[in-house]
Amino acid sequence: MPLLRQVIGETLRSRRLGQQRTLREVSGEARVSLGYLSEVERGQKEPSSELLAAICEALGVELAEILDEVSLMLRLADLTEVSRAGSAHDAGPVLSAAAA
Amino acid sequence: MPLLRQVIGETLRSRRLGQQRTLREVSGEARVSLGYLSEVERGQKEPSSELLAAICEALGVELAEILDEVSLMLRLADLTEVSRAGSAHDAGPVLSAAAA
Repeated sequence: MPLLRQVIGETLRSRRLGQQRTLREVSGEARVSLGYLSEVERGQKEPSSELLAAICEALGVELAEILDEVSLMLRLADLTEVSRAGSAHDAGPVLSAAAA
Repeated sequence: MPLLRQVIGETLRSRRLGQQRTLREVSGEARVSLGYLSEVERGQKEPSSELLAAICEALGVELAEILDEVSLMLRLADLTEVSRAGSAHDAGPVLSAAAA
C-alpha cells in the first residue's frame, strides 16, 4: 500500500500539470518554496495541513476533492496489489507512474 | 475551513471510541506513544504517513475509508461555514464536537 504523502503528491502534480502550470507559478501563488512543492509532489516531504491548504487554494481545487481522488487511487493500488500478490512489485502501476 | 490534521484526528478518535478502545490499547498496537496518538486525535500533531498507516491498521480500518470520511466532514464544515457566513463562528458544529 502506497503512503499517503506519495499519493497526495502525485495527485497534486497531476492537477498542476492538467492546468499546464509550472512549479514556479503554483509555489509562488501558494507562498511555498519551489523546492518544497517539488518535494511534496514527489512524495518526499510530508506536507503540513496549512501548506496543503495553501497549495490546494493555489490550484483552485477543494481539499475534499483531492482527498476523494487520493482515496480512489489508494483503492486502485490496493486492488492492483491484491491481483499481483506474490510478485516482486510492491506498488503497482498507479505509483509506477508517480516514480517515473 | 478546518485543517486536515484536525479532521483526520477527529475521525480517528471517533473510530477508536466506536470500537470502545482506549488510547493505550490502540497506541500499543500501532506502536506509537500514547501521547503522540492523543495529540494526533486532537489535531495538534501532524501524523506522518507511516504512523497514520500504522494507526489505521491498529484500528482495522482502510486509510481510504478514513479519507472518505474526512472528505465528507470537510464538505459538511464548508456548508456550515457558508450558511453561517458573517457570524462569529469559524468552524461550525462539525468541529465544535471535536474541540469539546
